[in-house]
Amino acid sequence: MSLHAVFRVDGSPATGLPLPDRGLEFGDGLFETLLLKEGRPLHLDLHLQRLGAGLRALHFPDCLATAAAQLQSAADECLQLAPTWRALRLTVTRGPGRRGYAPPLRPQPRIIISVTPLEREASMALAPARLGVATVRWPLQPLLAGIKHLNRLEQVLAAREAQLAGFDEALMQDQDGHVISVTAGNLFIVRDGQLLTPMLDRCGIAGTRRRLVLEQWAPALGLPAAECRIGLGELDTAEEVFYCNSLLGPRPVASLGDRRWQDHPVCAAMHDLCWSNPP
Amino acid sequence: MSLHAVFRVDGSPATGLPLPDRGLEFGDGLFETLLLKEGRPLHLDLHLQRLGAGLRALHFPDCLATAAAQLQSAADECLQLAPTWRALRLTVTRGPGRRGYAPPLRPQPRIIISVTPLEREASMALAPARLGVATVRWPLQPLLAGIKHLNRLEQVLAAREAQLAGFDEALMQDQDGHVISVTAGNLFIVRDGQLLTPMLDRCGIAGTRRRLVLEQWAPALGLPAAECRIGLGELDTAEEVFYCNSLLGPRPVASLGDRRWQDHPVCAAMHDLCWSNPP
Repeated sequence: MSLHAVFRVDGSPATGLPLPDRGLEFGDGLFETLLLKEGRPLHLDLHLQRLGAGLRALHFPDCLATAAAQLQSAADECLQLAPTWRALRLTVTRGPGRRGYAPPLRPQPRIIISVTPLEREASMALAPARLGVATVRWPLQPLLAGIKHLNRLEQVLAAREAQLAGFDEALMQDQDGHVISVTAGNLFIVRDGQLLTPMLDRCGIAGTRRRLVLEQWAPALGLPAAECRIGLGELDTAEEVFYCNSLLGPRPVASLGDRRWQDHPVCAAMHDLCWSNPP
Repeated sequence: MSLHAVFRVDGSPATGLPLPDRGLEFGDGLFETLLLKEGRPLHLDLHLQRLGAGLRALHFPDCLATAAAQLQSAADECLQLAPTWRALRLTVTRGPGRRGYAPPLRPQPRIIISVTPLEREASMALAPARLGVATVRWPLQPLLAGIKHLNRLEQVLAAREAQLAGFDEALMQDQDGHVISVTAGNLFIVRDGQLLTPMLDRCGIAGTRRRLVLEQWAPALGLPAAECRIGLGELDTAEEVFYCNSLLGPRPVASLGDRRWQDHPVCAAMHDLCWSNPP
């Protein structure tokens, strides 16, 4: 089975992006990464809600319904293929425009979809992750915090650091040294019977699985959950650390530098909730 | 004459960008906008120096010579066309890669060049610009300050604000309210016989014409020049304000909100230095 991506641009199979495109020129756009289970996009509603918030934040015309229809159509095509797990990336750019930063008065957003088979069963638990601390930090930008836009250089550079150092993931801080996330996932710590996760009001991406942890899975476990500022030192006193994203679900953290975590009962329970009753 | 852009990708005429490309996916790349005078790129050395700094900051393989050769080749082609002024945009992305933020261990950068005829003679002085203050501010990110990478959403949103409010340009501040730039140019103020420009150690783009102002044109005028932190209120006491970029050179500022500036002797002298002896 090929692990290469298949692309659609504005609803049609494509091998290239028509130029010019403001997504390439300025990162003027948004994206979502969805998990497809046998052609069915999981938690589609949460992804579309975040995309909608991003479209409003960037002052795009309302193209949410079009994006959703093209997403569904690309997912439906997978029903005729091997019944494997796939990642579907939906990218919406502000499309073509004249030279310069100023967007067109009436932009024609472009919708790019890529579908990539996954190497593994998404629901199988992964070994606990070994984390390093990235030297690259999130940029401070309250205006764009939470949404999933195309300006992602910091995560690229932090992921490169993790890769070169042989870590599974890198922990990323904000400019003041607060813990925010890993490069591709939201972070949670368990301490004194409480679940804590970084506030994302100044940087970071508000993940769909983060929402599920806070709004559904933690309540289902009777675990109080809160957003707060978390200093790097506070991870030392955490009883358990895990992160989550749309493709992995919750994944336990085994280590950060010298600190080790052996048991992950909360993450294991979250993992069961995530995969035992998919929507 | 058409004002549409003509594109080349990796040295060949193209209408599209091959997918996948990390420039589109994450803004994982850099760009330069050069002014072509009858097919000759002005201040090419300064553009290539900044591009080189960006390639190092993003840990790209050294593709500066290849980029320079393709740029020269695209510029040379313009010699056979109408002898007008053109803008040449050189974009270097980290090219294709597998799914996810982590870059390939051996990236194959992609070079995209677009050439667009300008609507006007670049060397003709423009009317002094009316500026508004953008509500959108630069993100705080010392690591990437100064270089011209593809993560440019803030300037897009600020340029949109200026456009909707009927201003020629928007003044952009950093997260702490210091003046940094306009959306597409570096800012200078004249006060007490001194030329001041914002420090760009925490955000902003270090422009090629900014370098010329600081290193050549101000010294040629016997004007002391310095980089410093400039509060928005300090513009009130400025005797003169101007900005500059590669396509316009120095352009005087007529107004910012209620504040008006009538005379622009320093900017006029800079304009003469910029255009009377092009390199």
